[in-house]
Amino acid sequence: MSIDIDFTKGNGLIPVIIQDYEDGEVLMLGYMNSEAFDLTVKSGQVHYWSRSKKRIWLKGETSGHFQIVKEMRTDCDNDTLLIKVNQTGGAACHEGYRSCFFRRFEGNNLITDRELVFNPEEKYRY
Amino acid sequence: MSIDIDFTKGNGLIPVIIQDYEDGEVLMLGYMNSEAFDLTVKSGQVHYWSRSKKRIWLKGETSGHFQIVKEMRTDCDNDTLLIKVNQTGGAACHEGYRSCFFRRFEGNNLITDRELVFNPEEKYRY
Repeated sequence: MSIDIDFTKGNGLIPVIIQDYEDGEVLMLGYMNSEAFDLTVKSGQVHYWSRSKKRIWLKGETSGHFQIVKEMRTDCDNDTLLIKVNQTGGAACHEGYRSCFFRRFEGNNLITDRELVFNPEEKYRY
Repeated sequence: MSIDIDFTKGNGLIPVIIQDYEDGEVLMLGYMNSEAFDLTVKSGQVHYWSRSKKRIWLKGETSGHFQIVKEMRTDCDNDTLLIKVNQTGGAACHEGYRSCFFRRFEGNNLITDRELVFNPEEKYRY
């Protein structure tokens, strides 16, 4: 790529905001290293670097809920991406919600104000 | 706060996505340490940790473009926040755009497809 993304500030990783292409709901935030970035650009499907598993992760490889890239944007410092996607399966969150941000602060509490799209215990059965 | 935000994965910092409360446009991404988080909750105005200046930063302290908290959300892992704001002055980006994500990938190029809200050379005159 000739576009110079700055991976240095985050020790080789950049945060990537994922937003629904149709209605603008923020679905999740993930991290990419340069390999995940290149794979995403080449394939048109969002790939991340998993900080817990320490490996490249094609979103949807387990759940079947892929993220199809519709638009990619970078910020003023080239150290954060915003990707607008078509979220297949209707849910980005492994807990079964459309968005990982399914809880709202209310005073000192967190309120779940979103509905489950799928039951995670049935989805990730081993 | 009784809400347990996980600052450990990012060495004391969490990424915070800022979204316009009215139309859902993603305006920027910043970082908070626990002090910036507490100040944001207490004041209702977004405070960040500036990674470059290494200090707490009240958004708008220089530009006058404050971010008034309308809604705060956390993700499934409690390590990322989504804050919906009223962006005063109409611009979140120091480069004069409403959103820091004013450039779109188009092949190997970046295209600016947003309009300037203010001229940064006039705004940040010393």
